[in-house]
Amino acid sequence: MAAPAVAVDNLNPKVLKCEYAVRGEVVMHAQRLQQQLQTQPGSLPFDEILYCNIGNPQSLGQQPITFFREVLALCDHPCLLEREETKSLFSADAISRATNILASIPGRATGAYSHSQGIKGLRDAIASGITARDGFPANADDIFLTDGASPGVHMMMQLLIRNEKDGIFCPIPQYPLYSASIALHGGALVPYYLDESTGWGLEVSDLKKQLEDARSKGIDVRALVVINPGNPTGQVLAEENQRDIVKFCKNEGLVLLADEVYQENIYVDNKKFNSFKKIARSMGYNEEDLTLVSFQSVSKGYYGECGKRGGYMEITGFSAPVREQIYKVASVNLCSNITGQILASLVMNAPKVGDASYASYKAEKDGILQSLARRAKALEDAFNNLEGITCNKAEGAMYLFPQIRLPRKAIEAAKAAKKAPDAFYALRLLETTGIVVVPGSGFGQVPGTWHIRCTILPQEEKIPAIISHFKAFHESFMAKYRD
Amino acid sequence: MAAPAVAVDNLNPKVLKCEYAVRGEVVMHAQRLQQQLQTQPGSLPFDEILYCNIGNPQSLGQQPITFFREVLALCDHPCLLEREETKSLFSADAISRATNILASIPGRATGAYSHSQGIKGLRDAIASGITARDGFPANADDIFLTDGASPGVHMMMQLLIRNEKDGIFCPIPQYPLYSASIALHGGALVPYYLDESTGWGLEVSDLKKQLEDARSKGIDVRALVVINPGNPTGQVLAEENQRDIVKFCKNEGLVLLADEVYQENIYVDNKKFNSFKKIARSMGYNEEDLTLVSFQSVSKGYYGECGKRGGYMEITGFSAPVREQIYKVASVNLCSNITGQILASLVMNAPKVGDASYASYKAEKDGILQSLARRAKALEDAFNNLEGITCNKAEGAMYLFPQIRLPRKAIEAAKAAKKAPDAFYALRLLETTGIVVVPGSGFGQVPGTWHIRCTILPQEEKIPAIISHFKAFHESFMAKYRD
Repeated sequence: MAAPAVAVDNLNPKVLKCEYAVRGEVVMHAQRLQQQLQTQPGSLPFDEILYCNIGNPQSLGQQPITFFREVLALCDHPCLLEREETKSLFSADAISRATNILASIPGRATGAYSHSQGIKGLRDAIASGITARDGFPANADDIFLTDGASPGVHMMMQLLIRNEKDGIFCPIPQYPLYSASIALHGGALVPYYLDESTGWGLEVSDLKKQLEDARSKGIDVRALVVINPGNPTGQVLAEENQRDIVKFCKNEGLVLLADEVYQENIYVDNKKFNSFKKIARSMGYNEEDLTLVSFQSVSKGYYGECGKRGGYMEITGFSAPVREQIYKVASVNLCSNITGQILASLVMNAPKVGDASYASYKAEKDGILQSLARRAKALEDAFNNLEGITCNKAEGAMYLFPQIRLPRKAIEAAKAAKKAPDAFYALRLLETTGIVVVPGSGFGQVPGTWHIRCTILPQEEKIPAIISHFKAFHESFMAKYRD
Repeated sequence: MAAPAVAVDNLNPKVLKCEYAVRGEVVMHAQRLQQQLQTQPGSLPFDEILYCNIGNPQSLGQQPITFFREVLALCDHPCLLEREETKSLFSADAISRATNILASIPGRATGAYSHSQGIKGLRDAIASGITARDGFPANADDIFLTDGASPGVHMMMQLLIRNEKDGIFCPIPQYPLYSASIALHGGALVPYYLDESTGWGLEVSDLKKQLEDARSKGIDVRALVVINPGNPTGQVLAEENQRDIVKFCKNEGLVLLADEVYQENIYVDNKKFNSFKKIARSMGYNEEDLTLVSFQSVSKGYYGECGKRGGYMEITGFSAPVREQIYKVASVNLCSNITGQILASLVMNAPKVGDASYASYKAEKDGILQSLARRAKALEDAFNNLEGITCNKAEGAMYLFPQIRLPRKAIEAAKAAKKAPDAFYALRLLETTGIVVVPGSGFGQVPGTWHIRCTILPQEEKIPAIISHFKAFHESFMAKYRD
């Protein structure tokens, strides 16, 4: 029995309300089954748990980019730079990069708290990377380095949400960090639906309608979240769509919160990544026209360095007094971790033609991205070959979000088991195959439709077996519940 | 001009209310002066800014512990473990430690998100370290690894504070993370005063009175914060005082939030660190008697690895359903950074007698702690030799908190300048000497008394000059304003 000081019924109700399906019920059940596999091998119809629930590439065997890790090791232990053996152990450009990074840190102290926004020299490198990417200038003063993208999102929600009448526009389906953060800060999630039939595009006329609807209920809609490339939906927005969104945010006075963490994850030739800042600037919109935050992370892309917790937000169009408030909140948390800061500067300023590591870096990067593209296509085709399942093209990000037309009997069985129908399906899939996916209900979906989110991250040699296990499960599930 | 979407008057008022003096007005002014020194050398009466405002040892030249950095470098770039040169570059026990740590991480993947509480093997190492420290068992399931101690504090405030009627007992003076976090979460700070005349001890009768007073105002006091060794006050609580606090929290049903990040920073022979968990268990109080959170960080101690953002909280006495809520909130943020996680396991399980690195590790550690003790004593004596200044013994932590009896004329000059009198003093000190301290008003103090917080962290060879500049400034300040 616990002490009486604290109990569920006297916790902050915002905490109770918050949900995060990516590590929710299905995943916790998977962890129990994994323990069972260890203690009672052979007791389940599979030998391993395959975590397709989360964009965590290195947990499934993806190797880190060598150059990045060389630089991190040298920055962690700068004494290495004074040793002769180091020249044979590390690439020449990793040594010079680490030397330059250390020179940009006051006292070469990677163990010191930095400026609250992050080390100035690293922010300069990131700003150059953004400038090179967009063709429009970026400024180190606009960069706030963060422990992954999530703390930046929380910070913006904290800033904007005053009470339950403050609304944040979110795509549905959405990455549940947004719904969780809005719940924790006590605001209102105002949904706008992505259109599955047009490859998860969005209609500004729909945005307009939803906005008017929210306003008529007294909701002060303060910001619009857009995730591009999409999570969980994997689409890459068309430029025209992006321009519509920018214009809408400008006209309606909404802060545009652009989740651009999958900017390197694009798998189709006919699409490319355009940052919302580039789109806005190319429309002639400047700081005074649009308030924009772009989130980036070291966890995604071809690097997939989730455990390093690096990232940044680039904020533009905020007045000086508001920026002071953002700086103050960042200061309360002192600074983000320096390893993550260094890595964020590296991913935005990777080896270039002529650098000693360039060829091996390029080979590692292309190998990962090409393999991800093949895996995405194989899984997409497999889903589309199954009864009652349709799956949009995986244009980008790390996920597929197939729709599953569940038979009425399956929906009734789910109801009897007190589960959402897609959670029921995901739990049966887990118990039969060891494959962990997240039910669509964790992301939001058009009522009456059911989905799952499945990452494209298992190693390529495992994909055929995953497909065949999935197929066998799905067929037997349909055979059991077919109307 | 910025876009109209967001302005200071439509931000979350909790954000506006929050203050964090450790990086506040005085420090921002110091940063401006530092820029001026770079662009116009010789334009100020000093050549460098001396940051005595923040417990950030490596920013002032403290070197990291070699063994810790060796292990981090090897974990960042595990390929090194397969190379022959590594044996001559790294100590044997760093190699074996890194090998063991990597073996405890699924897939040896230091770039993967971990379990939401942190890597199990590292939590096991921390739990053994706590057990060895306290002589009472600790459990890896009770450990939540965090990016420094601050996010753990925020998480507990988020959990406990429902509205402005929920109160958190805080010592005054306090480390302003607490007041900032309570403000951000919209709760009430309920003060209890530390008694300067008894070396910043505390009286339980005073706690009791404050509690009754708060309750009579309708405040539901939910938790008590205690910082031991003290920040900004530097005291080490007597065991009897700790027992009184434990008993008080048990009897009154308060969560005890124990900030124990300075547990390695003790500079006097007649005091030692006792964790609140050890005190409670030695009184026979178990999980059902007391709800207790202990915060630890890699930023303090002799290691001072602020930039790595590692730490943990050990939670005991929480019911299973409440723990599930804590786990859920931790999951929304995925996990803390793995470098910080590894470092937290190292500081709680440092080299031992017989390990290859032990002698050099011990020499580095003792060198830092003995030097800190000498610096603390030198500064304490210097303060006590100045007119109108009294300074308690620096028993622990990294700070001195001298009281300055400001003449009435100085207080009037401050009023005319629209500054708190201690902020006025700190700004004059900065402008005259380049020394940056934090005004006591940023921590709270008995009304009508004025203090500054000054770290003991400048390198030892600089201490005599700091003392002489401080003395000269103080004498001329007193000469100018003496009543």
